[in-house]
Amino acid sequence: MSDPATTAPSPQLFFETINAFQKSAALKAAIDLGLFTAIGSTPATAAEIATLCQCPERGIRILADNMTILGFLTKTGSQYALTPSSAAFLDQKSPAYFGAAVKFLLAPGLTEAFSDLASTIRLGRLHTTEQGTTAPDHPAWIEFARAMGPMMIPTSQGTAELITLDPSRDTRVLDISASHGAYGIAVALKNPRTHLVALDWEAVLTVTKENATAAGLASRFSTISGDAFTVDLGSDYDVVLVPNFLHHFTAAECTTFLKRAHTALRPGGKVVIVEFVPNEDRVTPPPAASFSLVMLGTTPEGDAYTFSEYQQMLTDAGFSDASLHPLPPTVQSAVIATA
Amino acid sequence: MSDPATTAPSPQLFFETINAFQKSAALKAAIDLGLFTAIGSTPATAAEIATLCQCPERGIRILADNMTILGFLTKTGSQYALTPSSAAFLDQKSPAYFGAAVKFLLAPGLTEAFSDLASTIRLGRLHTTEQGTTAPDHPAWIEFARAMGPMMIPTSQGTAELITLDPSRDTRVLDISASHGAYGIAVALKNPRTHLVALDWEAVLTVTKENATAAGLASRFSTISGDAFTVDLGSDYDVVLVPNFLHHFTAAECTTFLKRAHTALRPGGKVVIVEFVPNEDRVTPPPAASFSLVMLGTTPEGDAYTFSEYQQMLTDAGFSDASLHPLPPTVQSAVIATA
Repeated sequence: MSDPATTAPSPQLFFETINAFQKSAALKAAIDLGLFTAIGSTPATAAEIATLCQCPERGIRILADNMTILGFLTKTGSQYALTPSSAAFLDQKSPAYFGAAVKFLLAPGLTEAFSDLASTIRLGRLHTTEQGTTAPDHPAWIEFARAMGPMMIPTSQGTAELITLDPSRDTRVLDISASHGAYGIAVALKNPRTHLVALDWEAVLTVTKENATAAGLASRFSTISGDAFTVDLGSDYDVVLVPNFLHHFTAAECTTFLKRAHTALRPGGKVVIVEFVPNEDRVTPPPAASFSLVMLGTTPEGDAYTFSEYQQMLTDAGFSDASLHPLPPTVQSAVIATA
Repeated sequence: MSDPATTAPSPQLFFETINAFQKSAALKAAIDLGLFTAIGSTPATAAEIATLCQCPERGIRILADNMTILGFLTKTGSQYALTPSSAAFLDQKSPAYFGAAVKFLLAPGLTEAFSDLASTIRLGRLHTTEQGTTAPDHPAWIEFARAMGPMMIPTSQGTAELITLDPSRDTRVLDISASHGAYGIAVALKNPRTHLVALDWEAVLTVTKENATAAGLASRFSTISGDAFTVDLGSDYDVVLVPNFLHHFTAAECTTFLKRAHTALRPGGKVVIVEFVPNEDRVTPPPAASFSLVMLGTTPEGDAYTFSEYQQMLTDAGFSDASLHPLPPTVQSAVIATA
């Protein structure tokens, strides 16, 4: 992006942004219709894709051109082909396919939250519901657990690489808002003497259990169901994983929760927070900094906190030695501190 | 944009695109709340903007950061300032303010059309209504005429610069789907002996008349109300303006209409089409090529036609010497041919 302050007035950014919702709609349609799967490894014309998708050609041609414009396809002459990223993630025959994530990311409850952000901002609370996705047993989290697991693999593996537990004794890891379980599972697979405890809403834990069992962890896996702010967390953990949880709450609530995590840890144990952590300017890097808008739309008072804010919360909760660990190629970071 | 075929797989484009609807929602909220007008020419902190907008600070801070990320504001320390484009177009105190265009561009009927593009493509017709915005007297066009006029000024002025009428005699210009009237008004202001005839739905012509009168053209302005495909167009025109009309229809329908325009013109008269005209590859330049998706979502069979397609329609309708004229800095082009 060129420096917006030095360019002459142009309506182009306005048009592109106000119409940006059409990009989401087009990508959703392409996934819904199996456009990427139809193309697969064989470049194809609009007519050929239309036959495979069992659709009239006009809409497929316009959609394939749009996916080319957006960077999901390449077009040579009249033939469309998948980009490496589309082949990896959007072709259902790929093991890394994550098209199902659209079910969560564009769930009606989520898009509805963005239908009137002005009212949310004016009211200082959500315009749709009181607690948004932080409500007890909110059904979005079952969809999240089922849909988002495949997308979390790079982040969970990057996180697990940061955690080495003592191999000479049995260890214990607590995974907060475990969901799909990817974070705890990655840590447990890397540390064969670790027992994994997954905490989430009861209905969500069905998914966690399925995934932990599929990973061969059934014999060293247990669960705690309920509200992470009030349920008994247990004790003597070596690690408390807190992935994508704190952003839903105020800094004061985060500190309250981190005090509970501190109590549950052995002395010298680690809390490992995985989050969207923008720089201190709160506007870079864009993918992490943009996440605060998601929290504005879907939670009463959540945010994308900076590292200095996490440092303050952790200090207030009794932790020391907070450190920040970017998790490339993902846009998230881990914040680790010692109990 | 880097060449998508040569980069390693990354989920980043997927995330950015699937969440793109949030950009539209955030910009709409900023306009609805008067964020840009509140900042005006004086850089301000989130707290100061919040006071001016009469909103709690948290939402304003997150929104202002998001507008900075998207390029509508700059941020220095904790102070936000308008970019030149935001100052020109999004501050209500600017004469070029066009924030009201959001009422048309994000009207519920339009966004609803994009709620299930997959069904539209599968069915080969709109999933919401039969005729979309091409239905007779569709109310969207009243909103369009009221909201979009200010945005059309650069395109209409660029178009008028291409049209020089014989100053030694009275001339006649017909403006098809006149709407706000900007195109015909620009031509009539440049050619003082021209009588302007504006055609549109009856309810829309109220807006056209207001604007023509405000431009001082009341004494050389008249209207034709009804369907451009069936109503009597009159005759002996020197120019028939066809701005942003043909994209709603099939090529065969466009040719049918252009035959009517040909009949209405004097020999040697000009048809002047203003359109989003993508290159022959249909995927560049992105702003023009993307417009076909809008027609997929909102019309039964409309499209963004290439210049060679317009050439064919014009030849079939009896015109000669078709030529293409880009209208920078806008993303539209004029296609001019001789009767």
